[in-house]
Amino acid sequence: MSTVGKVITCKAAVAWGPKEQLKVETITVDPPRAGEVRMKVNFTGVCHTDAYTLGGHDPEGLFPVILGHEGCGTVESVGEGVDHVKPGDVVIPLYTAQCRDCKFCRNPKTNLCQKVRATQGAGKMPDGTSRFKCGDKELFHFMGCSTFSEYTVVAGVSVCAVNSTAPQDKVCLLGCGITTGYGAVLNTAKVEEGSTVAVWGLGAVGLAVVMGAVKAKASRIIGVDINPGKFQVAKEFGCTECVNPKDFDKPIQNVLVDMTDGGLDYTFECIGNVHTMRAALEACHKGWGESVIIGVAASGQEISTRPFQLVTGRVWKGTAFGGYKSRDSVPKLVEEYLAGEMKLDEFITGHMPLDKINEVWNPAFDDMHAGRALRTIIDL
Amino acid sequence: MSTVGKVITCKAAVAWGPKEQLKVETITVDPPRAGEVRMKVNFTGVCHTDAYTLGGHDPEGLFPVILGHEGCGTVESVGEGVDHVKPGDVVIPLYTAQCRDCKFCRNPKTNLCQKVRATQGAGKMPDGTSRFKCGDKELFHFMGCSTFSEYTVVAGVSVCAVNSTAPQDKVCLLGCGITTGYGAVLNTAKVEEGSTVAVWGLGAVGLAVVMGAVKAKASRIIGVDINPGKFQVAKEFGCTECVNPKDFDKPIQNVLVDMTDGGLDYTFECIGNVHTMRAALEACHKGWGESVIIGVAASGQEISTRPFQLVTGRVWKGTAFGGYKSRDSVPKLVEEYLAGEMKLDEFITGHMPLDKINEVWNPAFDDMHAGRALRTIIDL
Repeated sequence: MSTVGKVITCKAAVAWGPKEQLKVETITVDPPRAGEVRMKVNFTGVCHTDAYTLGGHDPEGLFPVILGHEGCGTVESVGEGVDHVKPGDVVIPLYTAQCRDCKFCRNPKTNLCQKVRATQGAGKMPDGTSRFKCGDKELFHFMGCSTFSEYTVVAGVSVCAVNSTAPQDKVCLLGCGITTGYGAVLNTAKVEEGSTVAVWGLGAVGLAVVMGAVKAKASRIIGVDINPGKFQVAKEFGCTECVNPKDFDKPIQNVLVDMTDGGLDYTFECIGNVHTMRAALEACHKGWGESVIIGVAASGQEISTRPFQLVTGRVWKGTAFGGYKSRDSVPKLVEEYLAGEMKLDEFITGHMPLDKINEVWNPAFDDMHAGRALRTIIDL
Repeated sequence: MSTVGKVITCKAAVAWGPKEQLKVETITVDPPRAGEVRMKVNFTGVCHTDAYTLGGHDPEGLFPVILGHEGCGTVESVGEGVDHVKPGDVVIPLYTAQCRDCKFCRNPKTNLCQKVRATQGAGKMPDGTSRFKCGDKELFHFMGCSTFSEYTVVAGVSVCAVNSTAPQDKVCLLGCGITTGYGAVLNTAKVEEGSTVAVWGLGAVGLAVVMGAVKAKASRIIGVDINPGKFQVAKEFGCTECVNPKDFDKPIQNVLVDMTDGGLDYTFECIGNVHTMRAALEACHKGWGESVIIGVAASGQEISTRPFQLVTGRVWKGTAFGGYKSRDSVPKLVEEYLAGEMKLDEFITGHMPLDKINEVWNPAFDDMHAGRALRTIIDL
């Protein structure tokens, strides 16, 4: 029996308040309005940004909310005016929209479409309302995606169809972390063949940076992490060396400058710590080194350095969603994966059903210590 | 009677200690050693970096020293192995050397030749000794130039011959400030036609930025200064608008973001104040705005901002000597000036003989208030 045009009742993990456990609830999902797409979410990754918001660290975090933004599924129905995806299409929701019309979309230098930014930030659909209810309580949307739900509604500008043969439990990761790290290297930094690269933080985003650096044919790829358990996997991904800042008495930037005859050509910060952001900048080579901030710092924190670092030729920049214009790029990344040119399976270290989602936040100690915990996929 | 191979006795303004007046003394200048060039300095500009060092603000400042680094003159004699300039050539000393051999010179991304950096920073010639004495007291060299002297000795990698018909009292300015501001726009930022630009500090360097922005065909060039007396000259140079931060209750970056529908494409800081450096970054447009630090901040001061500024697409960089590889570029800039494509005369607001050099530091109050004081040329 078709659900088109009807309210769908399904399960979702609801975040009722900051620092609370997620609770799997029966919710209702309204039909898509004009310009919107309702989809069945089949798989979703769990990203640190979800944990960050649930942890109450985002002062703009809204509750109750359905988190999740790294999903893949199939279109259930589309609202008026949506013609780029159709029911049955395999789709990935995109927290960075691409309207192809705003001044950001028309500028080749940026991927930060602003079309739905304000309402997305307010936890609403572009018309300012929500499609989710739990009982009579309205729920907020999250990052325009809300993939911790069997069904969700997204703006048409925030979703793209991908190759229907793609394994959805893998390509869901292209909705955030992997794309972010990979694109930081290839789009934001534009690392050249033979360059030296260092990466702070060897989680999924950091490993995606390593993967990008391998693709760019970097000559040295140095992983930096205080958990040496991650070094083995990092080397499998392509790190030529790994260093643990705790093994040295002097600042890690000094260690790296010494290791690399003056500093790195490119550095990437994938932790979200303002101190490692500074270290990453200062580990860059005088004259041309560029540092890219990928991690999201805690609210209110600031980065700082001596301006001399910049006057002598270092460049400090950042990236969101790897600089990829989302609807143009994610389908191509799926093809790249299908062609065997990009890893995704290697980032996945576990699967869980939705009702065990809270266990994702705290991977088994052994797994974490051994650096085995990367991305867990929730099967909806 | 030829002076070649002999010690030359001449006048120089000596800085005996920080915060002291310069004193015009009779000094001796040794002949150039291998790889060196001795030159008659005919004209020199006076730059803020000279004042900064004399003021004791540079913790690495050395005394007694002959300051000055914005000069022009003629070659008196050359040491063994120097074949790119010869006696009689009109030359400009270059505080940023270009050896064409070090890894910086071989990298097209930077102009920061390191060949003589260590000895230059130590106030010595590349062999670690000085060519200057006052009585039996050895004097330090300054920035590899020491142009506040009738004769000076510079490293061969730190000097270039220019068109011998060029007016030396004008092209001396290409040794520092004008080149720095102009190149910041054309080399470091690579401002595109139609871009919007803002410039903090409307002294000589800031006006050179304005000149560069005009050359790049920027659509809007906004001058920012707390001295409105400078606005008239700034508009003559090409500013389309000028703003005084003191006229507003809110931070100037917010004012500029409002004035420009989201922020500037490029901003330049020519003051050396870490607070205006931050303002210049934060006045940049989300997604693509780039801010270039040109000013030299006081020792120990740090720049800071929220990393979100970079993650959302702004870029923070800096420049020294406008990114120009010095020996390749300064002769071309002289030709550009001679062809009428670049202003220099308009930067010069006074001439003085060497023995009045101390008066340069304190231009007449009326001149300063009216924004008329830009560069004073010392005629040696």
